[in-house]
Amino acid sequence: MEGKMATDRIYNFSPGPSVLPLPVLEQAAAELTNYRGSGMSVMEMSHRSKVYIDIFEETKASLKKTMKIPDTHEIVFMHGGATLQFSAVPMNLIGKTGKADYAITGSFSSLAMKEAKKYGEVCVAVSSEDKNHTYIPAQEDITFSPDASYFHYCSNNTIFGTEWKYVPETGGAPLACDMSSSILSMPVDVSKYGVIYAGVQKNMAPAGAAVVIIDKALAGYEHPLTPKLMSYKVMIESDSMQNTPPCYTIYMLGLVLKWLEKQGGVEGMAKIKTEKAKLLYDVLDESAIFTGCAEKAARSDMNVTFRTNSEALDGEFVKEAAKAGFDNLKGHRSVGGMRASIYNAMPMEGVEKLAAFMRDFEIKRA
Amino acid sequence: MEGKMATDRIYNFSPGPSVLPLPVLEQAAAELTNYRGSGMSVMEMSHRSKVYIDIFEETKASLKKTMKIPDTHEIVFMHGGATLQFSAVPMNLIGKTGKADYAITGSFSSLAMKEAKKYGEVCVAVSSEDKNHTYIPAQEDITFSPDASYFHYCSNNTIFGTEWKYVPETGGAPLACDMSSSILSMPVDVSKYGVIYAGVQKNMAPAGAAVVIIDKALAGYEHPLTPKLMSYKVMIESDSMQNTPPCYTIYMLGLVLKWLEKQGGVEGMAKIKTEKAKLLYDVLDESAIFTGCAEKAARSDMNVTFRTNSEALDGEFVKEAAKAGFDNLKGHRSVGGMRASIYNAMPMEGVEKLAAFMRDFEIKRA
Repeated sequence: MEGKMATDRIYNFSPGPSVLPLPVLEQAAAELTNYRGSGMSVMEMSHRSKVYIDIFEETKASLKKTMKIPDTHEIVFMHGGATLQFSAVPMNLIGKTGKADYAITGSFSSLAMKEAKKYGEVCVAVSSEDKNHTYIPAQEDITFSPDASYFHYCSNNTIFGTEWKYVPETGGAPLACDMSSSILSMPVDVSKYGVIYAGVQKNMAPAGAAVVIIDKALAGYEHPLTPKLMSYKVMIESDSMQNTPPCYTIYMLGLVLKWLEKQGGVEGMAKIKTEKAKLLYDVLDESAIFTGCAEKAARSDMNVTFRTNSEALDGEFVKEAAKAGFDNLKGHRSVGGMRASIYNAMPMEGVEKLAAFMRDFEIKRA
Repeated sequence: MEGKMATDRIYNFSPGPSVLPLPVLEQAAAELTNYRGSGMSVMEMSHRSKVYIDIFEETKASLKKTMKIPDTHEIVFMHGGATLQFSAVPMNLIGKTGKADYAITGSFSSLAMKEAKKYGEVCVAVSSEDKNHTYIPAQEDITFSPDASYFHYCSNNTIFGTEWKYVPETGGAPLACDMSSSILSMPVDVSKYGVIYAGVQKNMAPAGAAVVIIDKALAGYEHPLTPKLMSYKVMIESDSMQNTPPCYTIYMLGLVLKWLEKQGGVEGMAKIKTEKAKLLYDVLDESAIFTGCAEKAARSDMNVTFRTNSEALDGEFVKEAAKAGFDNLKGHRSVGGMRASIYNAMPMEGVEKLAAFMRDFEIKRA
């Protein structure tokens, strides 16, 4: 199998949960029953114990350093992934004016908006639905409400394979951004954001938590019915320890961050991800049978979406690719076609081999 | 070190997260980088993939079988541990009459009640605060509101070391029970309950999820501001897949349930836990320096709380025990003294050795 590695692992192009760096998994396996002489697994540690607090603090410090998070902002680890943040963001922030702006550029931003409507007035500041979310609107096409509590957008649209290439200028309202599928893949100026959140299961760790980076000045205005664990104020004040946090997930994030440092941090990763994406987009641009789904200017470096001219051929490609050891290439059920998710942990080699496989597939069909 | 096992693991008496069965950890380690020939870790699997859905379904079926859950009830895996259920229970259930009864027998039931007050009128049906939660009130001492939407109690009080030895008869209102620290330790007649919930990090799996077992007839009446992921109706309808569930935690629960089956299931575990607890309570009852904190009739088989007659001696005991390989024996900061949490995964041998260590400690001090 050309897609199989020496270790019998396959190339997993899943959009999330997704591939993790092999050295990270190997280290986790090696210390699973006994973490560094502690006599227990990280899974078994009291979250109040010194040995665990050290892991927690190191992970937090490492994330702060990697993302250059300023002291104005706090990192909290929350339960529930990005989807619970679809509720938490409005519950915490919309009360200021009762209103928020949402940019709709894909499925998850739509879901976030739908949920926000429970808690206040929501305006569609811009939408790419007219062209089935194949592009990202320009700054000048966004209508900002003068009294919005925040402006929400999703930086990378996993399903449609598009990404915002710029940070919107709202003219006042804080930016709330779902970065689930692009976090840690490039440098981000955190100071520009009111809230950044990310489900961890794409670029950070196994599923089961969200990383939330909050401008502390925005906390403390939550709706009175906000569940305690969803209050940014409570989570900041308790340093994510209001209840037992998802301890093992946080430990895994720590390992991933150490691995990331060896790849040159987010700067190194930005270079690598551009190269990886180019390998696949070059195939699409030179192909007579494959077409990219997203407009060129909006192409995501994390999720490469494409299709052939027939559903039958799409199905054949996905099937043959899976046989060859390239798994999870089927596009989302709502859009069809194919999608190769090439997050940080997907090795260059996996992308090179997939590109070669695509070219071969085309030659065989010619 | 008398408390060290052959594997260099120590005996970990942590109240949660807590010890997991060693064979479970060993299996998890062995299949961590490549799950049974799938070519990937369970941590990397799409939650929509066949290989993961099989794990999910098997875990759910196994829990249903182990706990003999009737078809009237549904199992959902939710984010956020028991604490998020402190909010979810009232958000989903209190609306029916606007009122709920709470039994206060420890810290967590107090926290649950405090949170419920955000969403409706809450009555203290009974409280053991008069004797600092050292006992469990009798059925006849509970005042049930005729119009309560539900009656909430915590079956085992981790901090105080007490447990309900009977299932309260409410005369009508559904029972909502926090079983975090007793679930899977004995048979439970699930049909008597409206909602059973448990943070998984004591008797089930690593921290980061809650198992919720709901009478389906109670779902669908949630407060309109309930976050989508906290709606029992939404979670039942999506079979816990409204968003990416805590996949790896669910897989670990599956492994724990298989291990549990080999111990004779919940019936076998009930026998073992009684024996284990007796070993420690016998030491307390025969000791001149150690005293149990809970009244005898209310003693928990999961958390054995005790103290000496001086804080200094308590400190000495905890320190010497830790040196000998018995970790996390310090009582909760709110009550002091000592606490040995002896959940399902604590081997008999660990309890025997701790009992011997306690007797030795006393002899040396005599």
